[in-house]
Amino acid sequence: MQRLLLTFTIAVSGLAARAAEPPALMPMPLKVEAGTSALTIDQKFTVAAGLADARLESALNRLVARLSRQTGMAIPRGKPAAGGRATLRVECAARGAQYPTLGEDESYQLAVTSEGALLKAATVDGALRGLETFVQLVQSGASGFEVPAMRVEDRPRFPWRGLLLDVSRHWMPAEVVKRNLDAMAAVKLNVFHWHLSDDQGFRVESKRYPRLQQFGSGGHYYTQTEIREVVAYARDRGIRVVPEFDMPGHTLSWFPGYPQLAAGPGPFEVGGDYGVFDPVMDPSREETYRFLDGFVGEMATLFPDPYFHVGGDEVNGKQWIKSARIQAFARQHRFKDARHIQLYFSQRIRRILAQHGKTMVGWDEILQPGLGAGTVIQSWRGRASLAESVRQGYRGILSWGYYLDHLNPASVHYGIDPLAGDAAQLTPEQARHILGGEACMWSELASAETVDSRIWPRLAAIAERLWSAEDVTDVDSMYRRLEAVSRMLEWTGIEHRSNYAPMLDRLSGNRAAPPVRVLADACEALGLGPRHADPNTTAMPLNRMVDAARPESESVRALTLAAARVTANPAAAAADVVTLRVQFSRWAANDRDFQPLAEANALLEELKPISRDLSAVGTLGLKLLDNIAAGQAVPADWLAAQDAELKRMLEPDADLRLAAVRPVRILLDGAARLGK
Amino acid sequence: MQRLLLTFTIAVSGLAARAAEPPALMPMPLKVEAGTSALTIDQKFTVAAGLADARLESALNRLVARLSRQTGMAIPRGKPAAGGRATLRVECAARGAQYPTLGEDESYQLAVTSEGALLKAATVDGALRGLETFVQLVQSGASGFEVPAMRVEDRPRFPWRGLLLDVSRHWMPAEVVKRNLDAMAAVKLNVFHWHLSDDQGFRVESKRYPRLQQFGSGGHYYTQTEIREVVAYARDRGIRVVPEFDMPGHTLSWFPGYPQLAAGPGPFEVGGDYGVFDPVMDPSREETYRFLDGFVGEMATLFPDPYFHVGGDEVNGKQWIKSARIQAFARQHRFKDARHIQLYFSQRIRRILAQHGKTMVGWDEILQPGLGAGTVIQSWRGRASLAESVRQGYRGILSWGYYLDHLNPASVHYGIDPLAGDAAQLTPEQARHILGGEACMWSELASAETVDSRIWPRLAAIAERLWSAEDVTDVDSMYRRLEAVSRMLEWTGIEHRSNYAPMLDRLSGNRAAPPVRVLADACEALGLGPRHADPNTTAMPLNRMVDAARPESESVRALTLAAARVTANPAAAAADVVTLRVQFSRWAANDRDFQPLAEANALLEELKPISRDLSAVGTLGLKLLDNIAAGQAVPADWLAAQDAELKRMLEPDADLRLAAVRPVRILLDGAARLGK
Repeated sequence: MQRLLLTFTIAVSGLAARAAEPPALMPMPLKVEAGTSALTIDQKFTVAAGLADARLESALNRLVARLSRQTGMAIPRGKPAAGGRATLRVECAARGAQYPTLGEDESYQLAVTSEGALLKAATVDGALRGLETFVQLVQSGASGFEVPAMRVEDRPRFPWRGLLLDVSRHWMPAEVVKRNLDAMAAVKLNVFHWHLSDDQGFRVESKRYPRLQQFGSGGHYYTQTEIREVVAYARDRGIRVVPEFDMPGHTLSWFPGYPQLAAGPGPFEVGGDYGVFDPVMDPSREETYRFLDGFVGEMATLFPDPYFHVGGDEVNGKQWIKSARIQAFARQHRFKDARHIQLYFSQRIRRILAQHGKTMVGWDEILQPGLGAGTVIQSWRGRASLAESVRQGYRGILSWGYYLDHLNPASVHYGIDPLAGDAAQLTPEQARHILGGEACMWSELASAETVDSRIWPRLAAIAERLWSAEDVTDVDSMYRRLEAVSRMLEWTGIEHRSNYAPMLDRLSGNRAAPPVRVLADACEALGLGPRHADPNTTAMPLNRMVDAARPESESVRALTLAAARVTANPAAAAADVVTLRVQFSRWAANDRDFQPLAEANALLEELKPISRDLSAVGTLGLKLLDNIAAGQAVPADWLAAQDAELKRMLEPDADLRLAAVRPVRILLDGAARLGK
Repeated sequence: MQRLLLTFTIAVSGLAARAAEPPALMPMPLKVEAGTSALTIDQKFTVAAGLADARLESALNRLVARLSRQTGMAIPRGKPAAGGRATLRVECAARGAQYPTLGEDESYQLAVTSEGALLKAATVDGALRGLETFVQLVQSGASGFEVPAMRVEDRPRFPWRGLLLDVSRHWMPAEVVKRNLDAMAAVKLNVFHWHLSDDQGFRVESKRYPRLQQFGSGGHYYTQTEIREVVAYARDRGIRVVPEFDMPGHTLSWFPGYPQLAAGPGPFEVGGDYGVFDPVMDPSREETYRFLDGFVGEMATLFPDPYFHVGGDEVNGKQWIKSARIQAFARQHRFKDARHIQLYFSQRIRRILAQHGKTMVGWDEILQPGLGAGTVIQSWRGRASLAESVRQGYRGILSWGYYLDHLNPASVHYGIDPLAGDAAQLTPEQARHILGGEACMWSELASAETVDSRIWPRLAAIAERLWSAEDVTDVDSMYRRLEAVSRMLEWTGIEHRSNYAPMLDRLSGNRAAPPVRVLADACEALGLGPRHADPNTTAMPLNRMVDAARPESESVRALTLAAARVTANPAAAAADVVTLRVQFSRWAANDRDFQPLAEANALLEELKPISRDLSAVGTLGLKLLDNIAAGQAVPADWLAAQDAELKRMLEPDADLRLAAVRPVRILLDGAARLGK
C-alpha cells in the first residue's frame, strides 16, 4: 500500500502544472495508480448504468446534481446519445440486499481515461462508494473541470463504520439528520446510529404508547412518517440505520408518560440537567417486559436493520438497592448485586429482541457471559473492554477515542486503530469479530445550529481510519486532504462552514466585526469535559464564542507548520517568514480594535482577556522573528519569562484554547536553541 | 416624518453606550418614538395572542424559532405561566380575509417597555408585519439580548409590494421559492409574482394538459401538491401569490406538447437561447381559447388570488403576418395590425379570466382601450406608460427601475418612486390607482445557487421604497440599515451571503485562496445588458467570478466613504487613512499571489488583467495618501495620466466592474485640488 501511494504521488507530479496536487481522496482507497491524461467534465457529461435499479438510478441523479453544484454548471441528467458512450458507465454485478447489510461486499474498481470512466462493483452499495470516489476526483484544471486518469481498486477494512447522533439532549430536526447522512455517504460511512431516547427527551412517535412522545419530548419528536423517510434516505445512500433506545438507565423521559416502568416512585419530569441520574427501569416486574415487547415490536416495523441498540450504560443501581420490591426479587433470584440484576435485564431484553428478529447491541456495561453469541458490544470505555468482548465470544465496535463532542483534534481520533492497543493481542480469528467503530456525537453542548461543525470535518478522519488500510497513517497527508474534503462537503449541504460567519456576526451585535473573526480564527473550542457548563442543563445558551469557534483552527495549523520550517532553516523559508509576520502583526493590532466592540456586549465581555493575550502573542511572535532573522541569542531569563507567559496563555479561558500560542511556542523554542 | 426620525435618532443616542446605533429597521416605519429602557429577551421569552387563529399561531411559532436562531438561545415556545404576563402580547381586532388580499389593512402599533411588548393590529396580516418589526428590534446589549423601549405606528404607503421570480429560464426548486418568501415577509413584501412559463420552460403540472410539463419542462416543474404548499406557505406569511402564464408570446414551451396552439408551423422545441422569439399563439382559432379556458379553469383552483397575470409582452407578430389563415382572420375583423390582433386576444383572455373569477394583469404591451376597468397594467417600460395606464382607467404597478437582474446598486432602485416622474402629474384620485410596484428577478443569468445574492439585500431597499413614507430617502441611512438587514436575513434561511465562500473556493480549485477573495471583494458583477453572455443560452455555466461577485461591494462602499472624509479633511480622518492604507497595501500586494493561482485554472484565467489592475489601483492609492499627507501638489501631466488610467480601469473586464477604483478616484480628485 505504502508503495502504491508513492507511485501515485510521483506519477501525479509528472502531470506538471495541470494538477499541482493529487486529488484529495478521503478515505484513501486501497490502491490508486495514476495515469497521465484526464477526463473532461462539462455540461455534456452523461452517466449510464448496466443494471436497472431504483437505488442506483437515484444515486446517479444525485451524482449529476452534485457535479452541477461542484462545478457550477447546470448539467442535465441526460442519457448518452443513441450508440454514444456515457462519460461514466456503472456496472453492478448484482443488486445486493434490499437494505444495506452488515458485511455486504462494498468493493469497487474505477478506471478513468481521457475517453471515459468505468466503475465496476459487486453490489449497488459498492457502486455508491465508487461514485463518491469519482466525485472527489473532479478538479479544476487549465481547460475546465476534469478527472485525472487513474485506476482505483478499493474496499473497506472494517464492515461497521458509523456515526452516533444524540438527538435527545438537543433536538435535531430530520433535515439535520438528512444532511449528515449525505455527508456520511460522501466519506463512505455506512451506519447511522440514532440515539433516540435518553433522560432529556424521547424522540420517536409511538402509536402503541403515545404517552412516550406526549410526555417525554417537549413536542420535539420524529413522526413515524419522518422515521420511514430517514430510513429510506439512508438506504438510498448505502447507510444502515441502527436505532438506540437506551435502557434500563437513561430512561427518565419514558417515565412521565409511563411511571409504572420505573423502579423508584414518581412523579417524574423529563431531565433538563446533565449527568447520570438515579431513575431506572424496574427489572422485577413482568409488566416492564410486556411493555418493552410491545414497544420493540412496534419499532421493529420502523427500523428494518437486524441490529437494535438497547444502551445499557451508566446504570448506577441506586433505585434498585432502595426498592424493597426489587431487593426481594434479587434475593429470590440469588443476584449478588446490581450488575447481576442488569445481566438479568439484558438477557430478558435480548430474548424480546430475538423474537422480533433483532440482534442486540449494547454498551460495555452489558458485557457479561451469557448474552448470546450474536451480541455486539459497543465499547466507549476502551480497547481493553473491546478485546474482552471478543474473548467472551461477542463481536465488538469501538467508540472509545472517537467521541467527537470532546472536540479533540482530528489527529487524535486518526491515531486510534480498533485493532491496536489491547486488541493487538487477539488472534486473527478473534480480530475478525471486531467489526469496526462508531464516532459519537453526544449533544449536551451542540444544537441543530452548531452540530455540523462539531462533527465535520473531523469525522472524515475517523471514516478514513475505518475504511483505509492500517498503514495509512500520515497525519500531514490526512490534514492536507481533510482541508479539501471539508470544503467539498459543503456541496453535500452540511453547514459546518457556512454557520461560522452568521454566528460571529451575532456575537458582534449583528454586524461584520473583523476583530472578532481574527480572534475566533485564533482560538479553539473546548468540548465536553474541559468545558465549563453553566447552567449544566439543556437551557444553557449555545451562542458564545466557544460555540462558534472550531475544535481545530485550520489557519493556526498552517502557521504552526510555517513556524517549524522557519525554525529549521530561516534562510530557506522567506515566504513563511512573511506569512507569519503578516499574521502576527494582525494579532498584535487586534486587541485595540476588539476591546471597544466588547464594551456593552454581553457575549463578547468574557473574551477581553483572551483578546489581550492574542495581541501579546502576536507581539512576541514579531520579536522572535526579528531575533531569528538576526541570528541573535536571547537572554535566558527573558526566555524563561516568555516561556512562563506562553504556558499561562495556553490555559483555557472562556472555554477556549488560544491556538495562536502554538506557532509562537515553536519560534520561542527555536530562539532558545540559538542561545545554545 | 423627517422630524420624527430625527427625534428617534436623538433619543436613541441618549441611551449612551447600551445601544450605539438605532436598530436597523427596514422598511422604516411611519412613526417611531424611542424610550429609554429596554425589554430583555432571554429563554423565558413568551408570546401570547388575544385571537385564536391558526395563521397567527404559526407566525408566533416562527417568531420564537427565529428569535432562537438570532440569539442562539433555545427558546421554547412556552405559554406564559398562569396569571403571568407574556413578554409579547399580540392583539388582533379581526382575522381578516382567508387569503391575504389587495388593500387589506396592514397597519399595526407596537409598544415596547421594560415590562413587556404589546402589538396591536386590525388584521392578522397587520400583526405579521408588526412581528417582523419586533424581531428586527432585537439586539445584543451589555446584559444580553434586548429590545429597546419604543412606540411604533406603521402602515404601508402602497398596497401592492412584490417580487417577480422567473423560474422558467433557470429552474428554481420549491425550497428556493420558500426561503425567498421568508425573506420577503421579513421586509414586509406582500406579493409573490410567480413567472411560471416562458419560452425556456413550462413549470407547472397540469393534469388537464399534461403534455405541457411533459414536453415543456425538461423534467423541472412544480407538482400541484408543491404549488398548493407554496401558496399555503405564502399565505402563512401574509403574501399573495399571483401566477403568470405569459401569452400569446413567450410561449415556445407550450408548443412541443400542443403544437395546435401555435400560429406558425412546428416542429417545436423548448428554447435554450435567450431573446424575443417568433413563435406565438394562434389568436384566430377558437380551439386556442377553449384550451386556455380549460387551462385557466384548472389553474384557478390552484391559485386563490383574484389576480391572474397573462403576460402579453414582446409579441413581435411575425408569425401572425406570415400566416395566411391569421391574415384572413385579421381582414375579416378589420384589424389594422398585430397590435390590434393582440388587443382581440387580450379581450378574449380577459373574458375567460372573468368567467373563472379572475382579474387580468398584464405587461405594458396589452395597454389599449377596451380591456375592462379592473385590469392591472404592470409597467416595465417606464412611469410614462404607468401614468398612461391610469389615465386610460386601469390600475398600474411599476416594475421599470426595479429590475434586480440588471444588478444596479440599491441606491438606483431606492431613488425610483412610483409616483414621481410622469406619474407626478396625476390627480390624487388617479394616483390612488397606482397600486405599488414589483421588483423583477429574471433568471437568464441566475441559477438556484446564485439567485439569492441577485435578489438580496437590494430588494430590501425596494421594499422600503414601497412601504415607507415618500420622504424616507436618505441613501446613507438606507445603506447603513441595509447592511445590518442583510445579515439579519441570513436567519430567515436566505443564502445570499453563505454561498459566497464556497463559490470562491470552487473558482480556486476547491481550496481557500485569500487572493481570490480579495479580488472578489473589490469587484462588482455586471447584470443583464452589459454582461457578455456566451453562449447566450440556458447552457451557459454560471460558475465564473461574475456569478460569485456581488452587485455592490459593501467593503468598497465603506472605503469610498472613508476616502471622501480623508479628502475633505485629512487631519480629522486619521483612522480612515489607516483603513485605506491597510486595504490599498493588500490590493497592491494581491496580484503577486493571484497570478500563480490563475495558472492552469480555466476559471481564474480571465481575471489576470483585472487582478493586475487591482494592484495598480492599490499602489496608486498609497501614493495619493502620501501626497495628501504631505499636502504636496502633483504635476498636472501625472494627474492626467492617472486619470486616464483609472478611466480605463473602470471599463468592465471579465464582466466585472473594478469597484476598487472608486475610493482612489476620490483621492485623485482630492489630489488634483491640492494643485489649485
